[in-house]
Amino acid sequence: MSKPSIPQGTRDFSPAEVRRRQYIFNTLRAIFETYGFQPLETPAMENLVTLTGKYGEEGDRLIFKILNNGLHEQQDPKKQQLQAEWEKLLSRPYSTPVITERALRYDLTIPFARYVVMHQHELAFPFRRYQMQPVWRADRPQRGRYREFWQCDCDVVGSTSLVNEAELLCIYRSAFHQLKLPQVTIRLNSRKLLTGLAEVAGAPTLMMEMTVALDKLDKIGWEGVAQELEQRGIPGVGIEKIRQVIGISGNNSQKLEALSAIMQDSETGRQGIEELLQTLQYHEELASSDWSSAVEVDISLARGLNYYTGVIVEVTCGAVKMGSIGGGGRYDDLTGLFGLKRLSGVGVSFGIDRIYDVMEMLELFPAELATGSRVLLANFGGANEVYALHLLKQLREKGIAAEIYPDAAKFDKQMKYANKRGFAYVILAGDEEREKGMFSVKNFSTGEQQMMTAEQVFDLLSGQQ
Amino acid sequence: MSKPSIPQGTRDFSPAEVRRRQYIFNTLRAIFETYGFQPLETPAMENLVTLTGKYGEEGDRLIFKILNNGLHEQQDPKKQQLQAEWEKLLSRPYSTPVITERALRYDLTIPFARYVVMHQHELAFPFRRYQMQPVWRADRPQRGRYREFWQCDCDVVGSTSLVNEAELLCIYRSAFHQLKLPQVTIRLNSRKLLTGLAEVAGAPTLMMEMTVALDKLDKIGWEGVAQELEQRGIPGVGIEKIRQVIGISGNNSQKLEALSAIMQDSETGRQGIEELLQTLQYHEELASSDWSSAVEVDISLARGLNYYTGVIVEVTCGAVKMGSIGGGGRYDDLTGLFGLKRLSGVGVSFGIDRIYDVMEMLELFPAELATGSRVLLANFGGANEVYALHLLKQLREKGIAAEIYPDAAKFDKQMKYANKRGFAYVILAGDEEREKGMFSVKNFSTGEQQMMTAEQVFDLLSGQQ
Repeated sequence: MSKPSIPQGTRDFSPAEVRRRQYIFNTLRAIFETYGFQPLETPAMENLVTLTGKYGEEGDRLIFKILNNGLHEQQDPKKQQLQAEWEKLLSRPYSTPVITERALRYDLTIPFARYVVMHQHELAFPFRRYQMQPVWRADRPQRGRYREFWQCDCDVVGSTSLVNEAELLCIYRSAFHQLKLPQVTIRLNSRKLLTGLAEVAGAPTLMMEMTVALDKLDKIGWEGVAQELEQRGIPGVGIEKIRQVIGISGNNSQKLEALSAIMQDSETGRQGIEELLQTLQYHEELASSDWSSAVEVDISLARGLNYYTGVIVEVTCGAVKMGSIGGGGRYDDLTGLFGLKRLSGVGVSFGIDRIYDVMEMLELFPAELATGSRVLLANFGGANEVYALHLLKQLREKGIAAEIYPDAAKFDKQMKYANKRGFAYVILAGDEEREKGMFSVKNFSTGEQQMMTAEQVFDLLSGQQ
Repeated sequence: MSKPSIPQGTRDFSPAEVRRRQYIFNTLRAIFETYGFQPLETPAMENLVTLTGKYGEEGDRLIFKILNNGLHEQQDPKKQQLQAEWEKLLSRPYSTPVITERALRYDLTIPFARYVVMHQHELAFPFRRYQMQPVWRADRPQRGRYREFWQCDCDVVGSTSLVNEAELLCIYRSAFHQLKLPQVTIRLNSRKLLTGLAEVAGAPTLMMEMTVALDKLDKIGWEGVAQELEQRGIPGVGIEKIRQVIGISGNNSQKLEALSAIMQDSETGRQGIEELLQTLQYHEELASSDWSSAVEVDISLARGLNYYTGVIVEVTCGAVKMGSIGGGGRYDDLTGLFGLKRLSGVGVSFGIDRIYDVMEMLELFPAELATGSRVLLANFGGANEVYALHLLKQLREKGIAAEIYPDAAKFDKQMKYANKRGFAYVILAGDEEREKGMFSVKNFSTGEQQMMTAEQVFDLLSGQQ
């Protein structure tokens, strides 16, 4: 028999990993609820037509499609159609409803839009939802990129107020504060500012080309960007304008003031500045002084996704070398894809896997998440076993997580188990202890052993948990 | 554009549903941890070879298989192979690795066995794990039967001690006690007793046939069962023995004593009785007197799954008409499927969807799970908006879930939203309140409105949450 394995790009999560992931999920969930966001869960499978055409041609190729069941049961006339569909499948990556009509969720945004459209008459708008579920992509697996990974999204639809943008900034800051991530920066820009910049650069139709080039600033430097802008057809005088804008420094107000001067001929650009100012103002009213993260206007921030139309954000953690750990922005017509027009929304997402990696690298997880129950009762069989079971029952009634070694196995074997599991304490109760009505408690880190009453055991363990 | 929909047999979970499901999951998780069980999560996709052949022929047909990506990119020589595989796919429901090599998890048991075998050298045995994840089956959808549904399993592998059986009984009872399910009965039997019964009925090779017939006792009554036993080849004197056994009444000890007399010629039968006695004894030591559920030996309990070898259990809730809400038992060679022999295990599973339905029917969910945040701050714009934002910030800093209507929309519109969402309170702060430094709090159920200070608002809302 060949050794069992799991598909490339997927992961088993061990007990310690599940507990740490739950710690992140629970922290975020509590914050979302405090901010009045509501949980939503959608099925792992969507109809293939719901997903295709929503993520670009490359996206369509990366969708995991589910084979229809019962193909072998089809009758002869149907088999001809099957053959035709099969040939279609071999020439194009999608649109073969006879062979496959369902697929695995590719992100949480499209299912959310689909849900809102299906339930538009029951929902109270503005609808604020959060969703934390796995998604699947047939990407080439590599370090830090998985075929099954978790997304965590938080969106408001049905309101154009910039209070929403400010609240989402606060959610980010509150979350990273509670998770204790150091050196977090939330960069802020507006698609409208980028449009304005393209206008004042004399290339109003080249906004996308410009942002694609600008997005590479970190990687290829200004010289590289300038060269690319030229290749993409931005006029020299425009490139100079862009250089000026990129070079603007100072705090957020100073930056926006300097931008105002440059943008005065672009109405869209001025609107972008106005929206950023208002967002920062609302944020100021709502933010806690405890939060150490920074919110910085960054005019070079582009974000890849086409559907953003207003404020955009991206989060990085300066303490480790890693890409962004979150991002989002305002979109004006997401539900339009499913026939519900003019519903503006804004959302952010948390990169759970990367946040996990950062927290692991910086050792930010509480130590107690590693082990679960911290006490093992050794099992000496017979009357001693019964004596131990009584203590076990009482421990659990007090909410103290504990377990007994289920067999009266050799002492060494039991201690080896205790060691491997990493218990803080082992309770030993043999004839002597039972006759005295006491328990010996061995502290596994110091090696010390002490005889005590049941009451003392409870005090010791409830204090420690 | 056609209206969006979701695949048959799948479900979206609304905010109130997610909160209620989380309530069940969190209750169970806390109990599992208290009993020293550790969480595990496995990927939604498994290699197809891991799953096929594990669930019988019918099971193989119901596995959701994932189409390999990039089929359209194959070069010509490969395309011939593809065609051959395609024809195979049309004649048999599985074994077509070129077209599909991954599939969706069908239960949590096989992935658990696969995990244990893959990690046998790192794990500390006995390994106690719990797992709560969705599984997928291409079953015909019908009321209460879904194609995506949740399983919740709790198993110990690597120990033959009956302390494990007793602990699992306690986990059931503790869970149903905390969830407040009334009239819960945990029925208990042993596969060994069933084997013994087949022996004393003079049909030792017909144990499976006998249990299949016995399993229908509730549905077709003794006359029907007797007829079926006869058809299946059990001799008349044997059927009489079975009738005697089924007719045994009394409490658990009385039942087991009466059984002892009948089973004296079957060693396996006597062993089954011995194990049930010992399990009940351990259970007695560990059980809390608070728990109202009953544990009953039931000799007609069969349970469908072939892999059980020892004690078996099944849970029902007498307060509603519904099938079992949980079940499990001991199996001797689950990991043998993947090459790790002689690892005994015992486990139980919770029927999350049915437990949810029972709790909904009996209105057992805490009311506060329906709404999430209970306070809305109305938005009157300008300086009043800023005034409200300051209160909002303080509420959240105190951990009180609250939200502001993000736009200074018409009052009616804001109240309509409040009503639809079901907030307990709406806080109104217009010019008058702001000038006085106060807030008007409207109780939405009584309609009463009262002006108060921020401190009074905090007291009111923290008491209520």
